[in-house]
Amino acid sequence: LKRENMEGFRNEFLDMHSYDQAMFFIEQKKSIRLQIYTYLSPEEIADIMESIDEEEQTRDLISEMDPRFASMVLAEMSADNAVDILNEMDKDHIASFLTIMDTSAADEIKHLLHYEEKTAGSIMTTEFIATYKTNTAKQTMQQLKEQAPDAETIYYLYVLDADKRLVGVLSLRDLIVAPEDTKIESIMMEKVVAVSAGKDQEEIAQMMRDYDFLALPVVDFQDHLLGIITVDDIMDVMEEEASDDYSKLAGVSDIDKPNDTALISVKKRLPWLVILLFLGMFTASLIGRFEETLNQVAVLAIFIPLIAGMAGNTGTQALAVAVRGLASGDYGKQGKMKLVLREASTGIINGVICGLLITLVIYVWKHEIYLGVLVGISIAATLFVATITGALVPIFMDRLKIDPAVASGPFITTINDIISILIYFSMATLFMKYLI
Amino acid sequence: LKRENMEGFRNEFLDMHSYDQAMFFIEQKKSIRLQIYTYLSPEEIADIMESIDEEEQTRDLISEMDPRFASMVLAEMSADNAVDILNEMDKDHIASFLTIMDTSAADEIKHLLHYEEKTAGSIMTTEFIATYKTNTAKQTMQQLKEQAPDAETIYYLYVLDADKRLVGVLSLRDLIVAPEDTKIESIMMEKVVAVSAGKDQEEIAQMMRDYDFLALPVVDFQDHLLGIITVDDIMDVMEEEASDDYSKLAGVSDIDKPNDTALISVKKRLPWLVILLFLGMFTASLIGRFEETLNQVAVLAIFIPLIAGMAGNTGTQALAVAVRGLASGDYGKQGKMKLVLREASTGIINGVICGLLITLVIYVWKHEIYLGVLVGISIAATLFVATITGALVPIFMDRLKIDPAVASGPFITTINDIISILIYFSMATLFMKYLI
Repeated sequence: LKRENMEGFRNEFLDMHSYDQAMFFIEQKKSIRLQIYTYLSPEEIADIMESIDEEEQTRDLISEMDPRFASMVLAEMSADNAVDILNEMDKDHIASFLTIMDTSAADEIKHLLHYEEKTAGSIMTTEFIATYKTNTAKQTMQQLKEQAPDAETIYYLYVLDADKRLVGVLSLRDLIVAPEDTKIESIMMEKVVAVSAGKDQEEIAQMMRDYDFLALPVVDFQDHLLGIITVDDIMDVMEEEASDDYSKLAGVSDIDKPNDTALISVKKRLPWLVILLFLGMFTASLIGRFEETLNQVAVLAIFIPLIAGMAGNTGTQALAVAVRGLASGDYGKQGKMKLVLREASTGIINGVICGLLITLVIYVWKHEIYLGVLVGISIAATLFVATITGALVPIFMDRLKIDPAVASGPFITTINDIISILIYFSMATLFMKYLI
Repeated sequence: LKRENMEGFRNEFLDMHSYDQAMFFIEQKKSIRLQIYTYLSPEEIADIMESIDEEEQTRDLISEMDPRFASMVLAEMSADNAVDILNEMDKDHIASFLTIMDTSAADEIKHLLHYEEKTAGSIMTTEFIATYKTNTAKQTMQQLKEQAPDAETIYYLYVLDADKRLVGVLSLRDLIVAPEDTKIESIMMEKVVAVSAGKDQEEIAQMMRDYDFLALPVVDFQDHLLGIITVDDIMDVMEEEASDDYSKLAGVSDIDKPNDTALISVKKRLPWLVILLFLGMFTASLIGRFEETLNQVAVLAIFIPLIAGMAGNTGTQALAVAVRGLASGDYGKQGKMKLVLREASTGIINGVICGLLITLVIYVWKHEIYLGVLVGISIAATLFVATITGALVPIFMDRLKIDPAVASGPFITTINDIISILIYFSMATLFMKYLI
């Protein structure tokens, strides 16, 4: 590359898998990349771009290209991936790319751009292979050979009736083993599992995983085939959703990448911390109202972090179970009631056991039975309430159509801090005469 | 079904997708299932069993069948899935099933049983299609048609040399468009991405996602093809690993299923809570050592939960980032150093901002500048140390070859409680003369 040996570079580079090409490509300096663009065709560059999973990164690369070249690259990419990248750009950029692009590619992209992000419509591709049910296996095979280079997958063929409605699906496997003059209609599967264009991507991932599909057709309300979703896109969705749930539980808006600077990390985390700081101030002012009690029995302060901590821990556990349960769609209306009841029972059992334990420990350690009983009862009550809270908050958010995963661990922990301190100091006020 | 109409039941049931069959099947009472077994062939039952993702559930179903029938079902399943189920049984059961099974299926299963769980060897299947590089496209197509019904995927064909070493891969797509008399060697991809049998399943999932493969070959150290891993198995792995990381962050050993009872939930959560309770007792005894200080300045107690809480929050954030980063394998040795440095900078910036904020708030609220400065400095120092701790703990665990995800949120939170209280009370002792 350094010796500007174009042939040598092409030979070696094009022999690598497109993912490895992409990794090599990203690591280069901008000046070198600009040189590589001139060595490769838009189609070859498009393959590399498709192998990059981070849309922001691809957008930056596309933006550094000559606009005319960039629009050729976008046109060569499969339409769904091109749309993902365009969705990261501002409207003016999108419009200018679409204007200089060849019309048929531009039309396809415009069509997909209308769908809401994270729905079936936005992740599907329109490059599928469809055949008619009255065709023979031989005709279909012939059609397949012609269309194979452009199709996203050739392993499923979708079967349409005369009205272009989706009526069946045929795996390439079944097509290959079928005699040449068989009618498609007699070898296709009639029960097609299809999704509507507005379906949420997380539910689609769940379906593909359960049914072990390599591709899933997307239809409109009249069963016309709009596109297909392939398993490689779904794997990215699964990774994205898992990472999303995980980072929300931890209270970060996004997991940092290896090359992020500290300032980017701060931007992702500080907003959460500031909100939690003010919630924490509320906790502090709550304890402030019990300052008199604390002045009389300073030893009470010793157990504040223990009780608040246990409330936070049990709340996070209940939260995680509820969030995952709601996300998997395993719980119906009745199931949610059952979930809350189970959490309540779990909270009582865990509370009583931990409460008895701590009473015993404090008695052995400090020989103070009243203090022990006070802390024990507080732990038991706190664990009970905190467990229910951890389950109820995501259920309410789900009912309000908010993603329950937004109820992050730190948020639940801070709410439970407040609850636990209220319980603890109310109990302490009741026990006051035994403690002084 | 109720009217014992076998033909009617078969017609309707076999028309459903095997996943829907499985869901229907699980919901039935045992007596009905036993009746269904007699209506269907081992092969049909095997399809249903393959669609159930929970190996424990499949094991229970297999166990309730007549042993001879069960072993026929296991033999009909693809060997990798049969092994997953057998792995859930005790040794006597495995041995007895293998004894009555037909020999070739038993041999395949015995072979796979040797591989460690969660490695390439344990999730691969041996039902792949391999051809020789000297064959023609037509010969290969013929072979494909014969082997298609038994193969796990026919979309990739693996190409061997005369020594049976893996030398290339060919997609069905390329085979279909190739002229009939082409030699395989001239159309195959020579750069095959393959993994060794001992490779961890999480890394394999990462590879398949990055390279967008539908299947990945598994080889021994001499490049002999042992088996292939297909994308449907990898989707299950991804889901399993994501769920695993998520529940560990929340401090539960496993996410509850909708039908779990409270007692099962308690069993999954109580051990964590008891450990955390004792760690919390340690925190309490630490504050106990400052009881004198607290007696003099009870107002100090007000801010304990705030400071401890902030330490927990920032620690969990840093932990999540580090755990995900380590799991993705994005960080090399240098990267880890960089990660810690970035976390340190992030901790300082977040600490100083939150510290200044809280000083201001306390001054406005309580008009106590010394108390404000004390809490502010404590917050700043705590956030700095807690952020570094959150990143260091998983890195150390990784170095000790422990899965860093085991460092759960509640665990890090409790460690940071202790750190924050040490910092806070040390500062308070320094500031003592201004506070009284």
